[in-house]
Amino acid sequence: MNTRDDQAGRRGRRRPAAENAHVAVDRTRAYRRLRNPFQPLRVFSDDQVAAMHDAALSLLETQGMKVLSADARRIYRAAGAMVDEDALMVRLDRALVADALAKAPREVTLHSVDPQRHVPVSGEHVGFAPTSGPPNIMDAERGRRPGTLEDFTNMVKLCQSFEVIHLLGGTAEPQDVPPAFRHLKMMQAQLLHSDKIPFVFSRGQAQVSDVLELIRLAHGLPPEEFRARPYTYSVINTNSPLQLDVPMADGIVQFARAGQLLIITPFTLAGAMAPVTIAGALTLAHAEALAGLVLAQIARPGAPVMYGSFTSNVDMKSGSPAFGTPEYVKAAFGAGQMARFLGLPWRSSNATASNSPDAQAAYESQMSLWGALLGGCNFILHAAGWLESGLTTSYEKFILDIEALQMFAEVFQPVGASPADLALEAVAEVGPGGHFFGCAHTMERYRSAFYAPLVSDWRNYGSWAEDGAKTATQRATSIWKQTLAQYSPPHRDPAIVEALNEQVERRVREGGALPAT
Amino acid sequence: MNTRDDQAGRRGRRRPAAENAHVAVDRTRAYRRLRNPFQPLRVFSDDQVAAMHDAALSLLETQGMKVLSADARRIYRAAGAMVDEDALMVRLDRALVADALAKAPREVTLHSVDPQRHVPVSGEHVGFAPTSGPPNIMDAERGRRPGTLEDFTNMVKLCQSFEVIHLLGGTAEPQDVPPAFRHLKMMQAQLLHSDKIPFVFSRGQAQVSDVLELIRLAHGLPPEEFRARPYTYSVINTNSPLQLDVPMADGIVQFARAGQLLIITPFTLAGAMAPVTIAGALTLAHAEALAGLVLAQIARPGAPVMYGSFTSNVDMKSGSPAFGTPEYVKAAFGAGQMARFLGLPWRSSNATASNSPDAQAAYESQMSLWGALLGGCNFILHAAGWLESGLTTSYEKFILDIEALQMFAEVFQPVGASPADLALEAVAEVGPGGHFFGCAHTMERYRSAFYAPLVSDWRNYGSWAEDGAKTATQRATSIWKQTLAQYSPPHRDPAIVEALNEQVERRVREGGALPAT
Repeated sequence: MNTRDDQAGRRGRRRPAAENAHVAVDRTRAYRRLRNPFQPLRVFSDDQVAAMHDAALSLLETQGMKVLSADARRIYRAAGAMVDEDALMVRLDRALVADALAKAPREVTLHSVDPQRHVPVSGEHVGFAPTSGPPNIMDAERGRRPGTLEDFTNMVKLCQSFEVIHLLGGTAEPQDVPPAFRHLKMMQAQLLHSDKIPFVFSRGQAQVSDVLELIRLAHGLPPEEFRARPYTYSVINTNSPLQLDVPMADGIVQFARAGQLLIITPFTLAGAMAPVTIAGALTLAHAEALAGLVLAQIARPGAPVMYGSFTSNVDMKSGSPAFGTPEYVKAAFGAGQMARFLGLPWRSSNATASNSPDAQAAYESQMSLWGALLGGCNFILHAAGWLESGLTTSYEKFILDIEALQMFAEVFQPVGASPADLALEAVAEVGPGGHFFGCAHTMERYRSAFYAPLVSDWRNYGSWAEDGAKTATQRATSIWKQTLAQYSPPHRDPAIVEALNEQVERRVREGGALPAT
Repeated sequence: MNTRDDQAGRRGRRRPAAENAHVAVDRTRAYRRLRNPFQPLRVFSDDQVAAMHDAALSLLETQGMKVLSADARRIYRAAGAMVDEDALMVRLDRALVADALAKAPREVTLHSVDPQRHVPVSGEHVGFAPTSGPPNIMDAERGRRPGTLEDFTNMVKLCQSFEVIHLLGGTAEPQDVPPAFRHLKMMQAQLLHSDKIPFVFSRGQAQVSDVLELIRLAHGLPPEEFRARPYTYSVINTNSPLQLDVPMADGIVQFARAGQLLIITPFTLAGAMAPVTIAGALTLAHAEALAGLVLAQIARPGAPVMYGSFTSNVDMKSGSPAFGTPEYVKAAFGAGQMARFLGLPWRSSNATASNSPDAQAAYESQMSLWGALLGGCNFILHAAGWLESGLTTSYEKFILDIEALQMFAEVFQPVGASPADLALEAVAEVGPGGHFFGCAHTMERYRSAFYAPLVSDWRNYGSWAEDGAKTATQRATSIWKQTLAQYSPPHRDPAIVEALNEQVERRVREGGALPAT
């Protein structure tokens, strides 16, 4: 929740006793800028990382990428790549890759209308964005169904309501909006209901131009200034193995030229579209990421980019994708090493294959999050709401994920170890067998001492059972409903709101723009 | 599961198609000896750790511990401690502590009848034991109820059935057995239904003598040889703050003299029986652990000991204990640092405050496990089955925890990065846009490539919904039932079984032994 009152109000309803005496201090402001204090974990030696990088360079040099966009092939060729126009293959030599990588910025900060909402996503920093891409939406009352604009808007409002979410995402495809207008309505909803960093789907030049223009209007900036800093981001998925399709390749070029953040993310499922070995899947993903990163730096030297990874495994019996598996965790640690080898910020995901916001969803998501965060991740996409291998966004899962993200945000906060923190005087005061509840050391600190949970119920069994024996998933339903009921919109200049709405209406009248295929 | 056939059988029932073509290779043998390859995470600087150790020494020197056992006070005094018999306070100077610690072994391995079941619990090694101590038991069909001997025996059988469980525990108090016989029946069940390391409650000298004698009989060893190596373990909880009660203090002395493993674990809830700060709670816990460790080394120099930690926080509104919180994770990282400062093996826990084996139970347990394992833990008590802040053992939670433990066991396995693992030839063979399912590189590896889950359901939404839309918790019910149905007992020499049964019957006829208070 955004405010101390919200927090106390919600908690007060669950535990009416002693509300005034024990109002918790809001700790969520500290979640706006997160720094991960831990050394990243490793699964490969430095030599192994170098060997995998070298193998990826060999792949790009000898085999190359199939690039379906003629524009992109032209840009590659002009920079010195070997292009086979019959086979649509682009081969990159090592020098070209090294030159391009040298131009990529090491530090990236996304800019919001409100400077307090700027999101650094490099170095020790971490940013969280909700799930992006699911066609379906699900909640406990209405079940699983196609996404609507109302659901998409609700998700924007939920993202706005929790400090631990830093950026927006394509949370649920609004299938009730015609495809030619969908990008306009999605961006309108993001810009009017939130002041966090908006997300753009790369679905062709016409749509991307439309939404970048809306973001520029929201910031009230002239085009030159808008291009100077990233205000939004898009995710580029290669079509593994070794393919880059038209909207993705064109999206790289367009986003790079617009100076907006590109997250180049091969989606490599070991055993399916990638080798069955983790090292093989990561090496292939690395080659594909390099191809995308190079195209961005050719299109505009210094374009803000991020190394994305999404490597998991399939069930070898059924071919079903799996997420939050042990292999996923190790792939995350390894991908982080590859990103740091390049010196680039790194994106990972919070994923699960569960069809329900249940214990499986919880433990697979935890595995994903620990893998990403202890791997040294700077940006977690799908951080909240993802279910069913990405086919559904769940309201309840969103809330369960917020709890998890807030817990990580708290784990990242430093632990005091001053003489006062060691509390020798308090121990002397309380004495053997005593109790610390009422001592001065506790009284001075208890309001802000600990994280106050969103979903977790710590009452004893009797109180919990008497109150309906609700599971965490059931409690999540009332939490998202209440959060939506208490949502308050960000401040927006009325003139800018008017300009945005007019621009959307005009583009709708003009017929909008269909997605590229 | 223990065997390849079990695994394939169970999985076959869930996914009948293609059973023979895709039998997974059993990977669980590798779980018998676990090594954690990751560098432990830290929340304190080396200076802060030294300052906390120094503060704990000051506490022991100036304030001391209240020791309720006269025997234990006598042993402390004989070794040079300052003992105030009126106040029952024992003060330890730094030299005494340092001398005693120098005698504690750095390496500890618990010994089983079967050498393949020996459990190293020091260095990089990790052992998992089930929940210990809950009075209640719970399953989806019978609900929550007092534990019985049948439940305790079932839990022994479940522990025996999964390679990832290395030791046994006091999983559910068999309240249908009179207190004077309970220790005998619990040990009989452990020794007859499992060949894993048995657990002993320290509930007074008479009971401990009884059960150590049974373990000695199970190994068929003369008393001198039995004392030479640890075959069992007990957990000693101090009564924080700064108290050691009679059965705990006497248990330290008796176990040390018997050469069996002691895990000295202060249970310090920050804000209740410990200071509200993490560093304060850990410093108090450290002082109490030192007092216990010193008593063990005085009683028998070189006695096998382990540094136990169980520091969490309470809900400052209700006083309810909380587990798997962000504070819990940071306390675990910090406790691991304190244990390594002493050079001793370290025990932590897998805990949750959830009243139900739901998503909260899953995410709080994950937080606990990651905190423990990335903190460098050697021994996780309550690794499977713990629910409701330790008041209940849940059959379903046990199965969900086994899934989690197996996933960690897999995360610990090394990742190959040989040239063959990098799979450049396979990528060349498959080509852009191709598929790796059928290529030679995959065919050679797919049977053993990935972890095959116990509970997780990776089917698509339609197949899952058609099959009843079961949650992970619901699936866990059929898994524990089937595991019990397929349980096979370990080999035991019939003469030893007879001797054990006779000894138990004799002690029951003699009236058994009541727990000390």
